[in-house]
Amino acid sequence: LQERSIEVCLTPALINLYDLTGKIVVVIDVLRATSSICVGLANGVKEIIPVSKVEECEAYRGKGYLLSAERDGSMVEGFDMGNSPYSYMGEEVNGKSVVMTTTNGTAALNLAKDAKEIIIGAFVNLDSVCKYLSEKSEDVVLLCAGWKNKFNLEDTAFAGAVYQKLKTEFTVFCDSCVGAETLYNLAKPNLLGFMKHSSHFKRLQRLKIERDVDYCLTPNQWAIVPIYNPKTGAIEKR
Amino acid sequence: LQERSIEVCLTPALINLYDLTGKIVVVIDVLRATSSICVGLANGVKEIIPVSKVEECEAYRGKGYLLSAERDGSMVEGFDMGNSPYSYMGEEVNGKSVVMTTTNGTAALNLAKDAKEIIIGAFVNLDSVCKYLSEKSEDVVLLCAGWKNKFNLEDTAFAGAVYQKLKTEFTVFCDSCVGAETLYNLAKPNLLGFMKHSSHFKRLQRLKIERDVDYCLTPNQWAIVPIYNPKTGAIEKR
Repeated sequence: LQERSIEVCLTPALINLYDLTGKIVVVIDVLRATSSICVGLANGVKEIIPVSKVEECEAYRGKGYLLSAERDGSMVEGFDMGNSPYSYMGEEVNGKSVVMTTTNGTAALNLAKDAKEIIIGAFVNLDSVCKYLSEKSEDVVLLCAGWKNKFNLEDTAFAGAVYQKLKTEFTVFCDSCVGAETLYNLAKPNLLGFMKHSSHFKRLQRLKIERDVDYCLTPNQWAIVPIYNPKTGAIEKR
Repeated sequence: LQERSIEVCLTPALINLYDLTGKIVVVIDVLRATSSICVGLANGVKEIIPVSKVEECEAYRGKGYLLSAERDGSMVEGFDMGNSPYSYMGEEVNGKSVVMTTTNGTAALNLAKDAKEIIIGAFVNLDSVCKYLSEKSEDVVLLCAGWKNKFNLEDTAFAGAVYQKLKTEFTVFCDSCVGAETLYNLAKPNLLGFMKHSSHFKRLQRLKIERDVDYCLTPNQWAIVPIYNPKTGAIEKR
């Protein structure tokens, strides 16, 4: 029997503890970057180019790209969009390339570059992610983007959901898988209710974007697995 | 109303994200360093000097100290003791100063040095830790020693226990408090049973020290709050 491992990296600050070589990394930023990436690619966006800094995003201005920049939950002034999933589904994004920078998600993506494959996970594509991983034989690291390198509830709960669905296929796992699954079990009956405990929910509530949170916590809205293509530096639909 | 914060730092690798100035840090290494420290000081050990490296421990040889060195769950050959709580309660430790180095716990202690106060927590002194924190007004950081900088179940569950008992006294908390409490709630009815999911339990099981694990997961055996004294570099009974 082949040994196959699954691990949860609870924040990007811990990524150096994980050897990503030959593994599939799932980058998770439920509120809202990885949710919006799924929504965009499922709604005709051609590709999404993640960059770590606002200035890197700015550098694409005037070259035919849509510029998406979010910091601390709000759209950065002067950019085309923030990271609300609702801004990733209109006619205006169809066929476009989007350059995206967010507080946590895009930085996490760039940290995963040693992996064999990088895919994008969120509740909106939960089952598609699980199906994709299930058809592969590589080891898996579920990388939670967290909040400014700290642990957060929503990304960990999603990691727990993936672990719960796939655990019979893996022989090796870690304590953070068990912890994440515990959290998911408690949250599952009422994801939105549970996430009201989350610090990020409170942050978003102040910004009056409960509608986004509700959207991002509704599972399996899109059958899609976004994949990061290291050659082009873009996230594309598989 | 005074704002008072409580946070859980899930592994020593995240300690730089927390400003410890003016705060009380509770260092937690349930299996087994902080449990054994409580047991030792409650059983007549004069003081425990935590050092990060085995060589630092070695440097105390021949000067009247007991030398306690553990790596990867086992006693390092040639030292007086490992970190089993049972080796911290006999007549031979009474009145002695112990120099201690362990895989995770002593390193975590040394990372907390910017705090106003550093105290030692484990299930064996749970209520004493809570009572101590309750009588103070400082902000609190619960620092889990984890396993080689990764998250572990037993330290996080203990942090969750402390948070659950004290949360009404704090106005500010973080997502990792909520996550830790969730874990504790699930583990509480059968701590030993739950910890069988833990990777460290499996490690210790291979080493045939279930008896230690059982001991370390039995709450409130000792009414003691060990405190690190930065002037002497030693942990003493308050």
